[in-house]
Amino acid sequence: MRTTTWRTLNVLTTSLLQPSSRAFLKTQPLIPIRKMAFNTQHPLLLKKPVKLACVQLASTSDKAHNLSHAADKVREAASAGAKIIVLPECFNSPYGCDYFPSYAEKLLPSPDESPSFKALSQIARDNQVYLVGGSIPELHGDSKYYNTSLIFSPTGEHLASHRKVHLFDIDIPGGITFKESDVLSPGNKVTIVDLPEYGKIAVAICYDIRFPELATIAARHGCFALIYPGAFNTVTGPKHWRLLGQARAIDNQLYVALCSPARDTGATYHAWGHSLIVDPMASVLVEADENEAIVSADLDGEKIEAARKGIPLRDQRRFDVYPDVSQGKVNFQEP
Amino acid sequence: MRTTTWRTLNVLTTSLLQPSSRAFLKTQPLIPIRKMAFNTQHPLLLKKPVKLACVQLASTSDKAHNLSHAADKVREAASAGAKIIVLPECFNSPYGCDYFPSYAEKLLPSPDESPSFKALSQIARDNQVYLVGGSIPELHGDSKYYNTSLIFSPTGEHLASHRKVHLFDIDIPGGITFKESDVLSPGNKVTIVDLPEYGKIAVAICYDIRFPELATIAARHGCFALIYPGAFNTVTGPKHWRLLGQARAIDNQLYVALCSPARDTGATYHAWGHSLIVDPMASVLVEADENEAIVSADLDGEKIEAARKGIPLRDQRRFDVYPDVSQGKVNFQEP
Repeated sequence: MRTTTWRTLNVLTTSLLQPSSRAFLKTQPLIPIRKMAFNTQHPLLLKKPVKLACVQLASTSDKAHNLSHAADKVREAASAGAKIIVLPECFNSPYGCDYFPSYAEKLLPSPDESPSFKALSQIARDNQVYLVGGSIPELHGDSKYYNTSLIFSPTGEHLASHRKVHLFDIDIPGGITFKESDVLSPGNKVTIVDLPEYGKIAVAICYDIRFPELATIAARHGCFALIYPGAFNTVTGPKHWRLLGQARAIDNQLYVALCSPARDTGATYHAWGHSLIVDPMASVLVEADENEAIVSADLDGEKIEAARKGIPLRDQRRFDVYPDVSQGKVNFQEP
Repeated sequence: MRTTTWRTLNVLTTSLLQPSSRAFLKTQPLIPIRKMAFNTQHPLLLKKPVKLACVQLASTSDKAHNLSHAADKVREAASAGAKIIVLPECFNSPYGCDYFPSYAEKLLPSPDESPSFKALSQIARDNQVYLVGGSIPELHGDSKYYNTSLIFSPTGEHLASHRKVHLFDIDIPGGITFKESDVLSPGNKVTIVDLPEYGKIAVAICYDIRFPELATIAARHGCFALIYPGAFNTVTGPKHWRLLGQARAIDNQLYVALCSPARDTGATYHAWGHSLIVDPMASVLVEADENEAIVSADLDGEKIEAARKGIPLRDQRRFDVYPDVSQGKVNFQEP
């Protein structure tokens, strides 16, 4: 049956269930009508099942080594069947304001001089996978730096970039102080990427996860997964990393993947690790500890649909009471 | 120092930290400037510390008993120092569509015939507390029913009502099917209540917590706490109750209180229980099990401010990239 027909039917059956029609209900069998009221047909957001892997990479200060090590671990994940593979934030360098400039690479107007861009494209092509290339420090013009994720297709084609929109500027006394904006400039858009065989994903980076709007907008534009390369630390990691992953999943009823670097206690910044994948009911399907690891899960569009049929938030939001953030002015392109 | 002065100072110091000014930074000591950049002055949202208690009430099918039992438990909570006391959803009746009409009371145009309204007002006055009176089934006109929370001041004055905006219509195969909209009509507003000595709270009911907009709008309008009388069940309770409480807390950096009925396995609906209070860093301060209990916590405006200074989301949102849902058209009054 066509979607429009189902929608009409849904409106009809829902209107029958208004309190003013309760008299009607008393004379009719309840169960078929109840069932129909939830039966709006939706296309699967994830067109076919796919294994997604997060590579919790142990990086060093040697960029060439990091790139070749990433290639090895992506090959390992692909060999185990993953078709969408995620690398961590700043996977080709140590994480820290002092490192961004010396590791940064020019991506625009051309990535010809970017060894990381070339390596990621090659890794995607070699393994025939979609690759969310964590992030790398990007140099733009003479003096602007961004924290940038590059996303590639299984043919090695560059599909999209996401520059971290919300810079990590926090100051928890006795905990951690960090100020990315000392060095970095922020990105200016929501990043949604179409993977034709599967559907749409959203990519954002680490601290971006604290701002629910990116996730809400992406979900309402039909993404089946939110993917966050990130490097939380040992202060906020145990408090908020898993919680934020689960929160984005439950509010948006889709898959969420968080991919961290492995912890290097010899580095200046100690990443939390704990890469994880959350399902549309907010169950954590898999979670690493702090060591190098590949975590993967089988994503299934039917699970998204089941979550949304069971708890039909998508049909229950009250945009007559409050606005729909996804319908306002949203930047989907860098200006 | 006056707020405006601090704001000017913040703009000045922040502008000094733009990447184009990095040359400047190299010749200046970093630390004093970094600290100043976070120093925007904000008034305390919670003007003075206050103990908040959730009464996880064991209700029966006897309304008069439920009201007198609620009075006893509120007295107990007040004796222990609580000044804001929360009762559960449907505290004066069993929970279920079959019960709403027979327990419903007329509140408008006048609550003169409402025993629950009168009892709640009296309980608040007797104990000199702010009372978020869980919820009761409300009859409006001849045939409309609402799930309604009544909020009273320490003098027994009725401050506000919240009618559940998002009705609990879910259908999890093998789990739970429930359809409040078979009987109830939805409320149509965000409910923010000013408690003059303390500050503003938001009140919403149970399933409303799944819709982050209510929380976001309330937080951005200056609430220090989000209060949800609720009655999750034993299917969605273990999966989502605590998670949703923590999610609303971490995204909005304020206190969240969820107050459930105690579980009655002899009733048709088995409430999850687990009333809890979450702090602005998303730590669960206290959580009941499924039995009757009073859980309380000391709320402190400095804790909200510390969370927001440490992780300054309020200054970092990118309303140039996406809209601010709290600045759009929002209903704060029932039409």
